[in-house]
Amino acid sequence: MINDHPGGRDAVLRHAGKDATEDFIPIHPSDTLHKHLPKEKHLGPVKPDNKRKEVMNHVLVAKSGDSKDMPLKLCQNLLDMEAQASKVLSERAFTYFHSAADSLGALRANERDWSRVSFRPRVLRNVVDADMSCRIMGQSSRLPIFIAPMAMIRLADDEGELAFARAASSHGIPYAISTYSSYSHDEVMQCVNDEGLGRMQMFQLYVPRRRENAIQLIHKARRLGFRSLLVTVDTPVVGKREEDDRYKARVEYQSGVADTPRTADISDSDDKPVLRGVHSSTLNWEDISWIRGAWGDSGPIILKGIQSAEDALLAYHAGVDGIYLSNHGGRQLDFAPSALQTLLEIRKFCPIIIGKLQIYVDGGVRRGSDVLKAICLGATAVGLGRPFVYALGAYGRKGVERAIELLSDEIETTMRLLGANKLSDLSPHYVNTKELEHYLIESVDRKEAKARL
Amino acid sequence: MINDHPGGRDAVLRHAGKDATEDFIPIHPSDTLHKHLPKEKHLGPVKPDNKRKEVMNHVLVAKSGDSKDMPLKLCQNLLDMEAQASKVLSERAFTYFHSAADSLGALRANERDWSRVSFRPRVLRNVVDADMSCRIMGQSSRLPIFIAPMAMIRLADDEGELAFARAASSHGIPYAISTYSSYSHDEVMQCVNDEGLGRMQMFQLYVPRRRENAIQLIHKARRLGFRSLLVTVDTPVVGKREEDDRYKARVEYQSGVADTPRTADISDSDDKPVLRGVHSSTLNWEDISWIRGAWGDSGPIILKGIQSAEDALLAYHAGVDGIYLSNHGGRQLDFAPSALQTLLEIRKFCPIIIGKLQIYVDGGVRRGSDVLKAICLGATAVGLGRPFVYALGAYGRKGVERAIELLSDEIETTMRLLGANKLSDLSPHYVNTKELEHYLIESVDRKEAKARL
Amino acid sequence: MINDHPGGRDAVLRHAGKDATEDFIPIHPSDTLHKHLPKEKHLGPVKPDNKRKEVMNHVLVAKSGDSKDMPLKLCQNLLDMEAQASKVLSERAFTYFHSAADSLGALRANERDWSRVSFRPRVLRNVVDADMSCRIMGQSSRLPIFIAPMAMIRLADDEGELAFARAASSHGIPYAISTYSSYSHDEVMQCVNDEGLGRMQMFQLYVPRRRENAIQLIHKARRLGFRSLLVTVDTPVVGKREEDDRYKARVEYQSGVADTPRTADISDSDDKPVLRGVHSSTLNWEDISWIRGAWGDSGPIILKGIQSAEDALLAYHAGVDGIYLSNHGGRQLDFAPSALQTLLEIRKFCPIIIGKLQIYVDGGVRRGSDVLKAICLGATAVGLGRPFVYALGAYGRKGVERAIELLSDEIETTMRLLGANKLSDLSPHYVNTKELEHYLIESVDRKEAKARL
Amino acid sequence: MINDHPGGRDAVLRHAGKDATEDFIPIHPSDTLHKHLPKEKHLGPVKPDNKRKEVMNHVLVAKSGDSKDMPLKLCQNLLDMEAQASKVLSERAFTYFHSAADSLGALRANERDWSRVSFRPRVLRNVVDADMSCRIMGQSSRLPIFIAPMAMIRLADDEGELAFARAASSHGIPYAISTYSSYSHDEVMQCVNDEGLGRMQMFQLYVPRRRENAIQLIHKARRLGFRSLLVTVDTPVVGKREEDDRYKARVEYQSGVADTPRTADISDSDDKPVLRGVHSSTLNWEDISWIRGAWGDSGPIILKGIQSAEDALLAYHAGVDGIYLSNHGGRQLDFAPSALQTLLEIRKFCPIIIGKLQIYVDGGVRRGSDVLKAICLGATAVGLGRPFVYALGAYGRKGVERAIELLSDEIETTMRLLGANKLSDLSPHYVNTKELEHYLIESVDRKEAKARL
Repeated sequence: MINDHPGGRDAVLRHAGKDATEDFIPIHPSDTLHKHLPKEKHLGPVKPDNKRKEVMNHVLVAKSGDSKDMPLKLCQNLLDMEAQASKVLSERAFTYFHSAADSLGALRANERDWSRVSFRPRVLRNVVDADMSCRIMGQSSRLPIFIAPMAMIRLADDEGELAFARAASSHGIPYAISTYSSYSHDEVMQCVNDEGLGRMQMFQLYVPRRRENAIQLIHKARRLGFRSLLVTVDTPVVGKREEDDRYKARVEYQSGVADTPRTADISDSDDKPVLRGVHSSTLNWEDISWIRGAWGDSGPIILKGIQSAEDALLAYHAGVDGIYLSNHGGRQLDFAPSALQTLLEIRKFCPIIIGKLQIYVDGGVRRGSDVLKAICLGATAVGLGRPFVYALGAYGRKGVERAIELLSDEIETTMRLLGANKLSDLSPHYVNTKELEHYLIESVDRKEAKARL
Repeated sequence: MINDHPGGRDAVLRHAGKDATEDFIPIHPSDTLHKHLPKEKHLGPVKPDNKRKEVMNHVLVAKSGDSKDMPLKLCQNLLDMEAQASKVLSERAFTYFHSAADSLGALRANERDWSRVSFRPRVLRNVVDADMSCRIMGQSSRLPIFIAPMAMIRLADDEGELAFARAASSHGIPYAISTYSSYSHDEVMQCVNDEGLGRMQMFQLYVPRRRENAIQLIHKARRLGFRSLLVTVDTPVVGKREEDDRYKARVEYQSGVADTPRTADISDSDDKPVLRGVHSSTLNWEDISWIRGAWGDSGPIILKGIQSAEDALLAYHAGVDGIYLSNHGGRQLDFAPSALQTLLEIRKFCPIIIGKLQIYVDGGVRRGSDVLKAICLGATAVGLGRPFVYALGAYGRKGVERAIELLSDEIETTMRLLGANKLSDLSPHYVNTKELEHYLIESVDRKEAKARL
Repeated sequence: MINDHPGGRDAVLRHAGKDATEDFIPIHPSDTLHKHLPKEKHLGPVKPDNKRKEVMNHVLVAKSGDSKDMPLKLCQNLLDMEAQASKVLSERAFTYFHSAADSLGALRANERDWSRVSFRPRVLRNVVDADMSCRIMGQSSRLPIFIAPMAMIRLADDEGELAFARAASSHGIPYAISTYSSYSHDEVMQCVNDEGLGRMQMFQLYVPRRRENAIQLIHKARRLGFRSLLVTVDTPVVGKREEDDRYKARVEYQSGVADTPRTADISDSDDKPVLRGVHSSTLNWEDISWIRGAWGDSGPIILKGIQSAEDALLAYHAGVDGIYLSNHGGRQLDFAPSALQTLLEIRKFCPIIIGKLQIYVDGGVRRGSDVLKAICLGATAVGLGRPFVYALGAYGRKGVERAIELLSDEIETTMRLLGANKLSDLSPHYVNTKELEHYLIESVDRKEAKARL
Repeated sequence: MINDHPGGRDAVLRHAGKDATEDFIPIHPSDTLHKHLPKEKHLGPVKPDNKRKEVMNHVLVAKSGDSKDMPLKLCQNLLDMEAQASKVLSERAFTYFHSAADSLGALRANERDWSRVSFRPRVLRNVVDADMSCRIMGQSSRLPIFIAPMAMIRLADDEGELAFARAASSHGIPYAISTYSSYSHDEVMQCVNDEGLGRMQMFQLYVPRRRENAIQLIHKARRLGFRSLLVTVDTPVVGKREEDDRYKARVEYQSGVADTPRTADISDSDDKPVLRGVHSSTLNWEDISWIRGAWGDSGPIILKGIQSAEDALLAYHAGVDGIYLSNHGGRQLDFAPSALQTLLEIRKFCPIIIGKLQIYVDGGVRRGSDVLKAICLGATAVGLGRPFVYALGAYGRKGVERAIELLSDEIETTMRLLGANKLSDLSPHYVNTKELEHYLIESVDRKEAKARL
């Protein structure tokens, strides 16, 4: 069972025989122990609920009273909030959210590629109307953006996923909850129902190693009322996030923990152990059918983590409702392409799917202009992850709301300056992608795509 | 009426109930109150003229006596003057002039693209004559440059627009006055007439939200004797200039002003309120006809802010006299193209208009070599804005004169080293634009252009 | 005979008449004097074995106790080890290993070109198996990497080449020993045999100036049991390594040594003296036949230092077993191409040899992702040099083992994230080389290639 | 006559009425006053010869005893010497030699473009011979390099041009003397004859404004025995060298000199005054014939400063012996192309002239590898200017000799590593110019070229 722990086997071994409360609370739903640990294994008294607030105060460094703090109302853009977050989040939390794979090749591609696209604005148009609304995974949204799924939000703020659900609802955009939420999915949906938050929640699925667990999880998401299923396909193993690994190694080293043996023979799982293989490492196109069966007609199914024109085409033929172009925030494969690069690949090699599949993108988005660049090129909507968690960590829920407002202002202003009144007015003619096209491949693997279909 | 205030509604609310004299004077013509505020609303004694000089002394930090100051005669180029201006201008003034939109994508494109063009000089030619003269918007000019329109020049120096009018006249180049001059248009033209400054003034028009105001403004410009009309078309809303916004937010915050509510319902205007919509947000191609009607045959009409080959072609078919390629100094749309980029687009996709329309460019011009690069590629003349206001702020009118002299020297020397005796000798063969062409789009939106015509 | 000294004539003259023990020991096998210096020339008592350890302690600065040291277990990648090595290696050792030719043009090409290739990962594949094994120069290896040949390893650590042989063996990868090993080839193979290290040793040959010496050396390598012969072809003269030259010049200058005359007439060699000509400067394609004759059927012959498609094709026609694309770690010709650039040249101009010749590459490899990029493009395996000597210098043999483990982890994780289960699954479709192709030549010298064949 | 002064009118006015000895001596031949100033205008006693040495000691800051000095024997390359020169040369001298035009666009192109070319080395060739000799402007040279013409060498060292003549002769390369030598041409040739230095002197001609002066100068060069004539064609006016101008302006300002009026009417010359027009601003292709007439058959005539394929072709048709591709060390036109760029233009658009005209290049050359890149692409030989004057300023004549030795070593080593035994072995196949070709124009002005012929 140790191999099934979503944080990896090491995370368990590291705390073996010790009081792990401080590390446990901010990242586990409060019903975790009751649900996952058989009663007979509760070996001592644990009162997480009592201790929770105190721990959170400790894990998160004090935010107020720092003369260098930037008041929320002075934040002009999302980067201001990130700067503030880097000052007030605990090292553990900031490191977790900030880290990316290996030499940061994929992370930097995300940042760089947005700036490689410029606009071609049109003038002398009546732009008095600016309608930014669209449909995202079957639901209407005020803006073409959503909060992308991220794990362990309570590392940033005790209100965690609830803050996202509330801010998203009050500002009219959808929110995708991670399989690894720090409030349980029950708690989040309870809150949504109690407070009438609108029901714009999407469920992000990391497919567990055992199929029975996967089906159970999908059934639960369905029962709780989630409206779309984002099946993550880019995580057969977890990437090598060195900033995070470095932090953990240092803490471990300073606490005098002995090396956890990497080669120990562990056989309490059906699957064979796989290095960094927290989730299913066998997930493949054939599995889509039983996932669809378990989900039923509860809403669209989106494949999250498509990174090539070939796989976009395979997804289309597999009959899913949408694809989500993402390199996982640069956290998985070093030197993976940006979503923008993949979007251009699709435009070039399988334009047929644009307009037929919903297309979502994320990675490195910090500006309303980034959002509209993606829309011009055929994206349905754009997800943002880190910016919202930084906003939450720096300023609480108000920060998230302010972040949405800032983006709304930027999107509205940019639309008008482009000469557009609604998102469907936009087209590739509104952007100059020539610089990015210099890095576009010349051919794709057509043979492979054919053979599989 | 609050929505019609050219500085935006916030600018009014920020000073509500307080003495705003210090902020008011440097940016409003001295007849502003008399013209725009009905007598019955003058609630207390206000003596702007008495207080003006004192205020200016306060707003502008002391210039003399600073041991690090660079004497004017040591300035070797326009950048030296900017460096000095950054030291002596008030934070408010420098921030206002220096700021640009969002992440500075458009601003940087302006600087970068000039340096992406190199020269192809020709040797062994008799270049003893160097005639730099040309015609700019119907008037003869000693140099192929003019002072581009900028608002609120008195923020830089109390002589304000009058200094520009005088320096431009004494050195034989035209000057375009902004709708938002800090001396009234009457005052400026009075000075021009009194001092016999030559009549090379152009009028830059921000089209007001109400058509009657627009017509009134055009009629007045005509009556005052302006010789050409620059209709600004890139400002349906005002860009998000973060450096400036940040400054204002900080001042507001430090002065303890409460948040100005952004969503308040204000309905004293015919138009519906538009975020950042200071001027008309409905201005479109159909409006050109009544503008032309109001202006009559008082001189050429130029559309300022054209940023695509498509709109250049539409302007040609709309029958205007010229186009002014500009991204508004990078102050409007983030990631807008540089004028040079747009000029190359026109050369590639609608070369027919070169030679038939007057073509002006601005943005990032700091050198005589920049000016000649534009001329080689088909520009009629080149505008410079910030460099002149920095020269004025740093050294007063003498600085502006010196800036023109420096440019004249650079243009003359560069012409001779290129092997040219007059501007019409120059052609695209004198420049290497290959680097810039790597970023040129491959096709334009021909369908749209056709449909509209 | 002074011209035959592998360190160059200067290295001998510099120590003439002085006790050179400290410089001698770390870079010469312990049997050097007995083998190369006739008994009658032993002029005084020399006890290298007694003094060895003491000297090593002196040459290498103390490693322990430095509070800034990074413990081995905190190293997350090979660059961490290099950082540590730069702190603990003696200046002499670090300078020797770190230096590269002239203005570092070739060195930087190596680093840069890896980062110019990005990945095209495929998702939804069962990647539970990850077989990284391959055959390297006729032997099976657990990973597609090997320790590239480097001279004078004892400069880094007293265990020298023995540490490499042991670490490589225990982790299942091959190791190529330099002609200039600091333990004698006999000592190394003695250790291999005594400890049963597996026999994955390859022999790197610098062809001596006199053919009889070359044949003697090849015969010995064969007799000792080396399994492949890497004939270095890029070193007719030794490159100008300024960091190293600068260090030597400074030491010489500070010790008051007079200038060694560069133009002295020395005629104790058959060959005429050649500037920087330590090895044969006459070696050419015709010589391959007698080298092959001397080596017999003892295993594959690989030409190390191929840097053009033309020479790759000539090598193919010359009938060798493989080519080793390398610019010698940037230490020979300034502005030489990276191995990756040469590999692309081969793909473009003589794809016929891919699959028929073994192809090895090295230069600037620091990541598992670099290794897999080369494999995708047709390389058989990838050599790493400096990273292993830095690991050895910083942490001893355990460092080398950890370096192999880190690479193994990176390669395994990257393979799975690419969607591949074995190396042969990979192909050029898994990488985007478009950026690098911008720098690829358009034609090769076909005439020359033809004329020679 | 003031307009004929080669340093410009300002240089005279600046010293009007003052003792200018200190400024005069290092830059004027000792017979200047006797030759150029009519006896009756010698108004007071001037003893330049007595005072010369003393002045030189003062103008040049002390070189010895500085603990940070780099001893000559530690210099590994030409850049080391430049670093030393920047420390020991007087500000005036360093500024003069170091400065370049306007925003340094042309200077940077020179540095950058060499590094944009990489090598394609060939292996397994017998390179035991390395013959670097060639013919330069009709004379044999040991290396494919020469000392490019520079003015006022005594600013760097009192031995001035004599040091260059001696070092060039002793190391077998030619030297081109400037029109503005600080030793008179008579003095230099006297020295050449007295010391039997070989007669490899070339004469660089700035064509004076008056034809009679030009003819006189050419006749004298011929009489003194110069063997080739380099007619400088890129200097109809002198460039705007801001570093130098800034230095002069500061000195002038600090010494309280009043502004020299720029617009004063000066009419003691036949030509009309031309801004920055020190030499002839009318020089054109027609003038070549009388220059050829004056020079007779005294050796090759080379046009120095060709910067386009068009002018290269015109030169060919004009019947000169060679062209010298140069942007004057980046000192004339900002954003002028590098010689390498022009060389590629010629290869692309008028390859016919390669092999028929001698082709020389200079600008930014610092390495033997730069030299060979030019040779590969068709250059006959390569000039270096600043590196030699820095070597002279830092270390005297020995520095110049060492600089030639370093280049010789680099050229020899690079040749062998390329697989070449003599310069004629090299061809474009030995370089990869793909990066540079991205910036190459697509067409030239054929019409103009035709019209003129």
